[in-house]
Parts: sequence; structure tokens; C-alpha cells
Amino acid sequence: MSNTRSYVPPSPGPRFVRRVPEGDTNERYVCDDCGHIHYINPKIVVGSVVAFEGRILLCRRAIEPRKGFWTLPAGFLEEHETPEEGARREAREEACATITIEALLAVYSVPRISQVQLMYRACLEKPEIFPGPESLEVDLFAWHKIPWDEAAFPSVHWALNHYWETKDKRVFAPFVNPEGQSGNAFSMKRP
Amino acid sequence: MSNTRSYVPPSPGPRFVRRVPEGDTNERYVCDDCGHIHYINPKIVVGSVVAFEGRILLCRRAIEPRKGFWTLPAGFLEEHETPEEGARREAREEACATITIEALLAVYSVPRISQVQLMYRACLEKPEIFPGPESLEVDLFAWHKIPWDEAAFPSVHWALNHYWETKDKRVFAPFVNPEGQSGNAFSMKRP
Repeated sequence: MSNTRSYVPPSPGPRFVRRVPEGDTNERYVCDDCGHIHYINPKIVVGSVVAFEGRILLCRRAIEPRKGFWTLPAGFLEEHETPEEGARREAREEACATITIEALLAVYSVPRISQVQLMYRACLEKPEIFPGPESLEVDLFAWHKIPWDEAAFPSVHWALNHYWETKDKRVFAPFVNPEGQSGNAFSMKRP
Repeated sequence: MSNTRSYVPPSPGPRFVRRVPEGDTNERYVCDDCGHIHYINPKIVVGSVVAFEGRILLCRRAIEPRKGFWTLPAGFLEEHETPEEGARREAREEACATITIEALLAVYSVPRISQVQLMYRACLEKPEIFPGPESLEVDLFAWHKIPWDEAAFPSVHWALNHYWETKDKRVFAPFVNPEGQSGNAFSMKRP
């Protein structure tokens, strides 16, 4: 894995300086004005591969990046949510879908941008789906009809293939990034 | 699960006000002075149950909270780390231990304080362990000698018991919080 430790993210604001706060061992962004420490904690993305009678739910993105491309319902975990609650909320927000989570499918990581993705395997309770504000359209795809070339992100491919490997298994260990692949962002909506 | 959505965390600084930034749907802390948005993202704790020839590595805490009590090597995931790298770093920092990660043991969550814990099952490469700056002492305990009453946090109990259930299994699904338990913080060193 490439050494990314020397990467310094962009300053969160003009008054922030990079220094080691008292009692810490790492350099952080500190506001030179009021002393506020801007911790850049890794971010958690939660999402799911949602099946209904052998078909898979995909959402066509209404927002950048990758507007117009197909993705899985996924997004940033919010405050005070469990990961499962977050994955259910994303399915509801992006596809008005009510899902039941079955298993943790994968833990992908994107260290370059400090992102950890918890992807679940889920099923749709009823086939009523509608595009939410971040989707242009939503649909259920038979496996051989999945628009692979129009997938928004490589990790959509990963999660779909990992789903396929485990769809008939009840117990399995969650997957990680495919060998040698350092991951990619699911979306960029939060700095 | 109790409704924690109405909880508003303490302001990160005197100039921050609570409002919905443009293009967002949730209220955030925004600096009234420079416009910096203080996103409170859930935090990721990474740690491990580390075994060596049937004995388990525990660290006696040199820092509050729960100073003097026994815990697993665990702490906050840092920027640009994968969760596995973070768990290895924590074992190195807290017990000077070189570990090999075998499996994801559990994903616990503490929604009250927006914390997700990724706990791994690992083994020690060599039985040379020494207390790091955050540990008073480190030791390898036979199962029947584990100081249960002096465990720093309930999730130390959870992870040890989940380890015990799976120690002879190669493939298993990671555990979540025990039924009805909403979790607890592993440490409090990062706001």
C-alpha cells in the first residue's frame, strides 16, 4: 500500500494552522483565533445491496459526482445512528425503499480520503420503490441486466460481485477491498 | 432503542452557531465568523482480541477514563489508515505488540456518542509485549484467569466472549452489540 501519511488535507478555513495540540501526538488543524481543534476523523459510509426476488435495487444518481450513473443506496452515517439504521435510512432516502438487513457483506476502506464503507446485504420488504431527491430513477435489475458499464463507482462492482458470491450463504465473513485495490469514494458530499 | 435524535452535542467553540448550511438538510455547527462547518461525524474505534498460545493480551489503562482497569488494545482510527492498520497500530502503541489480524470479530455501535467499533480477532507474532505510554502493565491471561471484574468497559466483556465463541471457527459473521445493549465508549480521548 502506498505511503499516504505525508498527505496533508486542505485547511478547513483561513484561520486554521497545522500544529500538535497539547496532550496529543499528531498534528491537527487548530484555529489560531479561538483554539478550536478540527479533528479529521475517518468517515463511515453505510450502504446495501438490496435484493427482491432475485433482482437488485440500483439508483441512478441525480447529483455529482457521477450524475446519471447507477449506484447502490449508500451515504454517510449520521450522528447517533447505528450502521444498520444508517443503511436503512439511505435506502429510504434514495429509493423510498423499506429494507431488512440480513448480513454485513463487506468492509471496504479508502485510506486516501479516510473513508470506511460498511456494506450490508439486505432484502426489500415490498417492491415499491420511487426515486428520492438524490436519484433520477430507481429500478430492480435481474443479474444479467445490471448496467455494469454505467456503474458510478468501482465499489459498486465490488459489492455486487461480493453479493453474488454469498447470496446463497447464510454465514460468511465480510469481504474487504479486492486485492491491490485501495478503494474509491462512494460520494463526495461531505468534506 | 431510545430516541437520541434530539440530543445536541456541546458547541465546539464560542463562535459556533447551530444552523442548516446551504445545500444540507441537517443542522450543523457553523462558525459565525469564518463559515467553517464543524461536521460531527461518527467516530471509528478499532481494536482486537489478541491471542498467543491460548492466552489473551490485556492492557491495564494508564489514562482516564477507567485508569487501572484492564482493556483490549483499541483506539480511534486515524486519518489515512485502513481499519486493520489502525488495529495493528493500537496493539503496537499500547502493548508494543506485533499482531496478525485473522478476522473481523464484531461491529459494535454506541449511537449515543456516535461511535462504531470494529473489533478484530488477531494473534501475536511473538510473545514479547511491553506497556506503551497509555498502559500501566500488559499481560497474557489464560481464559480462566481473565480479570473480568476489573475490565474497563462492558464491551471488553462482549469482545472476549465473542472471541471465545468463535476461537475454533475459521468462517463466521461478525457479532453486533448483545441484545438490548446500546454500547459503551472504549475511550474518551477525542471530542
